[in-house]
Amino acid sequence: MINASVAGVIEEAYKHEQIEEVYGALNGILGVLNEQIIDLSEEKNSAIKGLLYTPAAALGSCRHKLAFGSKDAAKAAEAQRDCERILEVFKAHNIRYFFYAGGNDSMDTADKVNKLAQEQGYELRVIGVPKTIDNDLPFTDHCPGYGSVIKYLATAVMEASRDTEAMCSNPTCNLIEVMGRHAGWIAAGTVLAKRSEEDGPHIILLPEVPFVRESFVAEVKAIIAKLNRCVIVVGEGLQGPDGKLISFMDGKFVKDAFGHTQLGGAAESIRGIVEEEVGVKCRTAKLGVLQRSASHCASKTDRDNAYLAGARAVQIAVEGQTDVMVTLTREGAGESVKFGTGTAALAEIANNEKLLPRDWINEQGTLPNEKFIEYARPLIQGEVTPPMEGGLPKYVRLEKHLVEKKCGEYGAK
Amino acid sequence: MINASVAGVIEEAYKHEQIEEVYGALNGILGVLNEQIIDLSEEKNSAIKGLLYTPAAALGSCRHKLAFGSKDAAKAAEAQRDCERILEVFKAHNIRYFFYAGGNDSMDTADKVNKLAQEQGYELRVIGVPKTIDNDLPFTDHCPGYGSVIKYLATAVMEASRDTEAMCSNPTCNLIEVMGRHAGWIAAGTVLAKRSEEDGPHIILLPEVPFVRESFVAEVKAIIAKLNRCVIVVGEGLQGPDGKLISFMDGKFVKDAFGHTQLGGAAESIRGIVEEEVGVKCRTAKLGVLQRSASHCASKTDRDNAYLAGARAVQIAVEGQTDVMVTLTREGAGESVKFGTGTAALAEIANNEKLLPRDWINEQGTLPNEKFIEYARPLIQGEVTPPMEGGLPKYVRLEKHLVEKKCGEYGAK
Repeated sequence: MINASVAGVIEEAYKHEQIEEVYGALNGILGVLNEQIIDLSEEKNSAIKGLLYTPAAALGSCRHKLAFGSKDAAKAAEAQRDCERILEVFKAHNIRYFFYAGGNDSMDTADKVNKLAQEQGYELRVIGVPKTIDNDLPFTDHCPGYGSVIKYLATAVMEASRDTEAMCSNPTCNLIEVMGRHAGWIAAGTVLAKRSEEDGPHIILLPEVPFVRESFVAEVKAIIAKLNRCVIVVGEGLQGPDGKLISFMDGKFVKDAFGHTQLGGAAESIRGIVEEEVGVKCRTAKLGVLQRSASHCASKTDRDNAYLAGARAVQIAVEGQTDVMVTLTREGAGESVKFGTGTAALAEIANNEKLLPRDWINEQGTLPNEKFIEYARPLIQGEVTPPMEGGLPKYVRLEKHLVEKKCGEYGAK
Repeated sequence: MINASVAGVIEEAYKHEQIEEVYGALNGILGVLNEQIIDLSEEKNSAIKGLLYTPAAALGSCRHKLAFGSKDAAKAAEAQRDCERILEVFKAHNIRYFFYAGGNDSMDTADKVNKLAQEQGYELRVIGVPKTIDNDLPFTDHCPGYGSVIKYLATAVMEASRDTEAMCSNPTCNLIEVMGRHAGWIAAGTVLAKRSEEDGPHIILLPEVPFVRESFVAEVKAIIAKLNRCVIVVGEGLQGPDGKLISFMDGKFVKDAFGHTQLGGAAESIRGIVEEEVGVKCRTAKLGVLQRSASHCASKTDRDNAYLAGARAVQIAVEGQTDVMVTLTREGAGESVKFGTGTAALAEIANNEKLLPRDWINEQGTLPNEKFIEYARPLIQGEVTPPMEGGLPKYVRLEKHLVEKKCGEYGAK
């Protein structure tokens, strides 16, 4: 949904005569650092419209983090250098409005850039646009991207549950692993697939609820006894009572070739427990990046709010605001919910993670409750239908015409 | 799509006065053996119509195999007993038409039931209806279910490829594991996502093409050098030149709690190779049962052909045919393709597996070629749109009213 926010920024920007040119940075902040600036006026109008249903990030993304406040003095110094470089590039291109879409780290970067501009007396307005499927930013009702990821996952879990139901002439357990390193918002959202007791998911393992082997095994046995099947959604960041990740094979972490601990083995780990202690056949699925890019099953409400957040960012910048993130707000409940926008200070967003409230989860900790459902259901309403070509979606690509460089090389990675 | 074939059988059956009652068996052949027979006339018409877009098998499925010709004398005797029991149940309920949807094993069962009925002089017409996402049945142009699974997977791979493209400020490899134990039809179908060289998938690892580590690594390096990313689809049944499965972690198989070798670790195995020898970050996804139940992204052509196969089965049975499977045929090519039906002897279907022809794969064995694309593209045309309720599909369940039992207990599992 970051593309829909970008479309909101672009289309709104062209309505304001204070804004003469609209540029995009290739691969997020990396593109600013390396002065890879895209002239968006060179893009076809149809491509900008196409951003409303195209997955991923049409301008590219990056994992480059400005590590302000790092205990590693070299990293902290690099962050400061990066920040000064960003302003150097902005000045060279007379960039006076900086709209930055992302999560916690991005809001921290935006805040630091804003503060340095003020120190240097460079007139710059900096507005954050929330974007993370993790839905873990504070002060905003929800984050664009979240409604779509749970609409897709609830659909997929509903379908997988029907598959499990059809196959349950023998007892079967179906484990589906979804994203969420610290927060269980994504896993929780799959509860929307459950319209009756027999529907899956029957258990959702949330990172917020410490995993206790004994009570889990008892719960699975009870569900299998009743339904001859059990559909379990596992948040990848699931932890034991000791705070350690439940990961692949007997509690050993999987390390990649660089020695980094990899998330993503939680379902396989749970499978081992179920097969050993419940003694039923298990199937696992792990959706990986497919869940966050499933534009073919996006939520129109989510898309509209993503666009709104982008457009509103431009409006408040032109009105004179800076150093804030656009937030999404809600009024009313149920079918009469209306979403609007507000603002929150960038500095308060950064490094502040919103977890699933404990009282939105049932007492046993096995499923989100009605409070969560009331919150989440409005976010998945309506469908976005991409145009089709030859039986498959027709997504757009931007042409990405780079503007001429005016600064020296920087070489950020 | 088995549900669409069932709907085709039911709706067609009511058009023929020779057919007085229409029954369904709960969980396939198990329901016949255990005399769990559902009176389909008790179902709501809306539920029968709903079968046209509902995933999985509304009547249930099973893994009970009639192991005729098994070297294990006890198993072979059990198959014979099962076959006699099936006829006992049919006679008790005056069942004179037997329509059985499934793959190789199901066609074998149907053939044996037909032959025993003839031996016993019991008038019975037995027609097979092809159904397997694996698409590996001979004599039929394609199998219902296949078009939908590749439409969904091609969509998902297209979207994951965009995600990888957006994230490739650093070189990235994305591995997506799909079903297919022996045949690569499913993996091959994802090539439809590729409209240009930059689009994924960049490599498809097919079970038909022995996996050679050296040439694979060279190909990945070449693609990463060009695009800074590589999207690889891995068929779960991928084998080395020695015919052994490429499975999880250093060639060791994953065993489940019952000691059975589990498929489904091929992508993790390939990930190890890429990280070790190419030295780039990898992400994996494994879709499991979600790929075969993704009705929200089904192909209308596939659905229509599934319905047609079911309806045609009834027509030819009423006309007097028996011991055949309905096949799907095609005339013409490209956009003017037309599908029709034919028949093939059940005995020739059983235990006869159709693999992807070698000349439908490029010379290097890394991607299916134009011959495959010309074959597969017509199968994914058109969309099936399930009705929505609260932002999610509204799938149906049958009420499953059992008819009164007339035979003794049997206790098949």
